Amino acid sequence: MATATNAPWTIDRYGGIIVDNAHDAFVRAARTPEAFDATLGGWLATWRASGARGVWLKLALDDARLVPVAKERGFEFHHAERTYVMMTTWLPSDEASTIPNNASHQVGVGAFVYDGENEKVLLVQERRGPASGRDLWKMPTGLLEAGEDIPDAAVREVLEETGIETTFDAVVGCRHGHFGLFGKSDLFFCVGLRVKDGASREIKIQETEIERAKWASVDEFLNNPNIEPGSHAHALHERCVRWSVGDYAGIVGKKLPLGFGRSGDVYTYVTTET
Amino acid sequence: MATATNAPWTIDRYGGIIVDNAHDAFVRAARTPEAFDATLGGWLATWRASGARGVWLKLALDDARLVPVAKERGFEFHHAERTYVMMTTWLPSDEASTIPNNASHQVGVGAFVYDGENEKVLLVQERRGPASGRDLWKMPTGLLEAGEDIPDAAVREVLEETGIETTFDAVVGCRHGHFGLFGKSDLFFCVGLRVKDGASREIKIQETEIERAKWASVDEFLNNPNIEPGSHAHALHERCVRWSVGDYAGIVGKKLPLGFGRSGDVYTYVTTET
Repeated sequence: MATATNAPWTIDRYGGIIVDNAHDAFVRAARTPEAFDATLGGWLATWRASGARGVWLKLALDDARLVPVAKERGFEFHHAERTYVMMTTWLPSDEASTIPNNASHQVGVGAFVYDGENEKVLLVQERRGPASGRDLWKMPTGLLEAGEDIPDAAVREVLEETGIETTFDAVVGCRHGHFGLFGKSDLFFCVGLRVKDGASREIKIQETEIERAKWASVDEFLNNPNIEPGSHAHALHERCVRWSVGDYAGIVGKKLPLGFGRSGDVYTYVTTET
Repeated sequence: MATATNAPWTIDRYGGIIVDNAHDAFVRAARTPEAFDATLGGWLATWRASGARGVWLKLALDDARLVPVAKERGFEFHHAERTYVMMTTWLPSDEASTIPNNASHQVGVGAFVYDGENEKVLLVQERRGPASGRDLWKMPTGLLEAGEDIPDAAVREVLEETGIETTFDAVVGCRHGHFGLFGKSDLFFCVGLRVKDGASREIKIQETEIERAKWASVDEFLNNPNIEPGSHAHALHERCVRWSVGDYAGIVGKKLPLGFGRSGDVYTYVTTET
């Protein structure tokens, strides 16, 4: 995938430099900001001479003292996770940067849980956040965890928030908004779940996040005074109800082989077969 | 949305502190790392005494000298964009952090462009990246730009890569993988496009990204030696071909009112009406 060198960096297939911040030579150079500054200056000269394009410099939280050095040497921030910040710089002066963007989306699920035995829908009121404090009965919702699939996230959120065990049936629809946290976009997958065979209907709420929860009638769900008819949410709710009575099949999630010579399966979402 | 104070921070509805790094009092405190360290220590004592929970500290690239100070005061990285890094710390010692995760997904599109007049499909070979250098004919693909909708991204990528003008018809399917850049997940929306009425079929490739492009037969597309039958890609390809001849409706994108008292529309994806 990448070309190894004796120095603390590799060259990727796009002509980019990936600095290995765990390499002995990096650790030695990084002992003080002053030493790192001198070494980084030399590396940059080498990379420029070699015709390299983008440089990826990952700095651990414990190496935060090096962030100002990299900034002064022309690096920008690219993305960060709890324990590191990735900084980049683009070397060619005659070509626009092709450094790919950071992750752009949060992905959330909303769970329409239908109890066919009692013809009831599971609704919650949130204790914190944008939906709290305005008597809003809503379906359980939440964000996907890292590496999590949509069906698993929906089942997990319902179990965490209400204690009800469910099984995934279909994605009813999806809303794509551009008003997420930190200026990001968000995809919201509205999912149809059924109460697991033989599971209890007794609700045990997650006290920190949920104010109250209940089994409601389908009419109460569909005629929610907070959900304007014609809005995207009402359109999704209407399809949830049609799904619950078998009038709407929605989007099926299938695990299919990844292909391209790679092992493993991935969820692929398509409409039901005609 | 948030409570203003005379100090350079506001309190959000989750009990969190949002530091305003453009506030005069912040700029004064941030003149040197030493001055910022003393001031930040005082602020933290105030926040703890007030029962605050999470603290959001946004540091501009030009304030990179403050990153080591924040780290020593217990802040971690949360996310970053080109011009800033967001750092956070969680103050309650008796409660787990509820600071939401950073964006978790890249979202990409793959464009199946069908020319109904000539019964041809538009294919490309990439010049750079994972799909390059292995004689792989593929549909044009690309990542969504910030704030971009799926139909717009598909039409834009095709125009950029090949010069062909198209119109959006339907999402054919979606693949959800967990092997994206920087350890993120990715959603890939496979989209059916038609050549715009009266538009030229003449291909003009984007030299920096595309090695070659051509109009191919549907048979060549479906019997791609790089796409194993049974794999997720083959399943999506098969549905593309069925979409092109009207045997598969796919997932419809509709702009619907946002609702919840907010103005504007959002794309909502549902299956076609039965």
